[in-house]
Amino acid sequence: MQTVQRAEPQNFERVLTSMCTEPHPKAREAAERFLATNPGDPGTYKTVAKLEDQAVEMLGEIAGLPDPSGYITSGGTEANIQAVRIARNHGDSRAPNIVAPESVHFSFRKAAELLGVELRTAPTTDHRADLDAMHELIDEDTVGVVGVAGSTEYGVVDPIPEIAELAADAGALCHVDAAWGGFYLPFTDFDWNFEHADIDTLTIDPHKGGQAAVPAGGLLARSRELFDDLAIDTPYLESTSQITLTGTRSGAGVASAVAAMEALWPVGYREQYERAMDNAEWLADALSDRGHEVFGPELPLVTADLSVPMTDELRDRGWRVSKTGAGEMRIVCMPHVTRSMLRSFVADLDWY
Amino acid sequence: MQTVQRAEPQNFERVLTSMCTEPHPKAREAAERFLATNPGDPGTYKTVAKLEDQAVEMLGEIAGLPDPSGYITSGGTEANIQAVRIARNHGDSRAPNIVAPESVHFSFRKAAELLGVELRTAPTTDHRADLDAMHELIDEDTVGVVGVAGSTEYGVVDPIPEIAELAADAGALCHVDAAWGGFYLPFTDFDWNFEHADIDTLTIDPHKGGQAAVPAGGLLARSRELFDDLAIDTPYLESTSQITLTGTRSGAGVASAVAAMEALWPVGYREQYERAMDNAEWLADALSDRGHEVFGPELPLVTADLSVPMTDELRDRGWRVSKTGAGEMRIVCMPHVTRSMLRSFVADLDWY
Repeated sequence: MQTVQRAEPQNFERVLTSMCTEPHPKAREAAERFLATNPGDPGTYKTVAKLEDQAVEMLGEIAGLPDPSGYITSGGTEANIQAVRIARNHGDSRAPNIVAPESVHFSFRKAAELLGVELRTAPTTDHRADLDAMHELIDEDTVGVVGVAGSTEYGVVDPIPEIAELAADAGALCHVDAAWGGFYLPFTDFDWNFEHADIDTLTIDPHKGGQAAVPAGGLLARSRELFDDLAIDTPYLESTSQITLTGTRSGAGVASAVAAMEALWPVGYREQYERAMDNAEWLADALSDRGHEVFGPELPLVTADLSVPMTDELRDRGWRVSKTGAGEMRIVCMPHVTRSMLRSFVADLDWY
Repeated sequence: MQTVQRAEPQNFERVLTSMCTEPHPKAREAAERFLATNPGDPGTYKTVAKLEDQAVEMLGEIAGLPDPSGYITSGGTEANIQAVRIARNHGDSRAPNIVAPESVHFSFRKAAELLGVELRTAPTTDHRADLDAMHELIDEDTVGVVGVAGSTEYGVVDPIPEIAELAADAGALCHVDAAWGGFYLPFTDFDWNFEHADIDTLTIDPHKGGQAAVPAGGLLARSRELFDDLAIDTPYLESTSQITLTGTRSGAGVASAVAAMEALWPVGYREQYERAMDNAEWLADALSDRGHEVFGPELPLVTADLSVPMTDELRDRGWRVSKTGAGEMRIVCMPHVTRSMLRSFVADLDWY
């Protein structure tokens, strides 16, 4: 028998660290049907190219942007790289920099290295962007200012309207990374999207809270012109130019994003958000009751400063957990994380 | 009913232009099973991470490289971008350039724009790299020299050993783009791989001739050290650093690559190559008999200088065809392209 047939994919029963999740059944079905299509070649694969337009339209609706421009990326990293590339190409500095809170995802470090842009990160206050600290880092070579709407490590939402003002004052573009938060934030009171602030580009990933199949990230831009500087001619394709980072792309991801959003926006996503927040709050209380110092949930993510180094023991019991850079245990309450799963987890913690 | 359920994916009955194809049944099955996994987070998704090691091992076998380093990319574009990034970071020029034949895929122009590297393209002779022309473009700022083993437009294989020598003489890295050709070339007499020449990095895509599901490209490197300069710390993951361009990645692509290679290497791929070449030769003869000027097949790809601008009429009949930059019609004989399909195509051509 072949190796791959013997291999069992990770099940989600004990996964508490991933920001991906089990695809919605309709998303899975759509992914399977569109497995052999390539939206990177829209002249040949016309149907999936139309689905991509629809996915962008729906992402725009979720992010408060009528008539959005954008595309379905391989994930948040590609979307963030492309946003930094847009800012670099749009600016006119020979030594461009991007200013962001230190809570930005590591994909911005990757983007900076790749693109020859300096990434300047400002200290945060309680894990939230500090506007004064960011302001101090901005100079005439600043081409982009970044806010995070749902940070990877702590689930914190930065003050996006004020960050957009910082960007506007600097003559720089404003990018918001809502890769993970984007499917929860519509049901909160946070100001985070194109409607709330003068944002230029935004990352929002269907394959995270959107319950689409990997790979389905999302990049939105307020105007199509922002993509113009990225266009590369494509001589041999039926289409004529390409603004994406990758070439061949996954039609499965695109189709599953549309299927998930058609199935869940807005009612299903609201229910999912409320359930996830209930679970996160329950977990925060349970950990707090046991004497741990807990942060969150601001969105459905909890960190706790566990007093014993128990990560390895938990891993031995099959739990997939991770730590923040500061060493706290970090639990992400994705749709596959149920209350009974959290009860078992806390029971295992009590065992020590 | 939802839009996505009404949408029909492109079938391959009349697709003559794509370098992707229908996945092998075992590749499709593996992709479906591993749809909800992410090799970008190997600490959490351990099984698919092991499958990725196996995919790289098998690609190394195909490309003549024992103990290979590399990973499964989103496609050839990511692999080529990363190869240029490796060359840039490995070199020590402040104004780095890459020298390539003008036949290189447009992803190199994308890589150059992205990475701030100058792309110098040399004229070709009969669509093949011209060594003298390339040599003239090389200077002390040349960090990489590129050869193409199976060009996108004409299916031509460059003289790779000589190109590797040019690179070595210049103190630059040598990259080979065998994204499309890599699964055909083992059954030819061409010198194209790590065994034949002092190549540093090579692109070879399972989701093209390998019959894996999109997204499954491949990047191989002779030594692991070449990836060191790309590593970005990943504080919150269970793993500690990341050398890929994208972050979250498709486990479906990885698993399907292993499944396809287990099913087809080497006997199935040889049969596929021979059938594809027979078809391409049949088509070349049929077009030549009708008075068209034909180029190829060197690998299973044919171009023809059609005397009437018939592409639009053929598209109206459902044929998915494309043109080269010079305006010739270009037909790629992928595994889904059968003799009877080509007979229908030629019959439609005769109709004009």
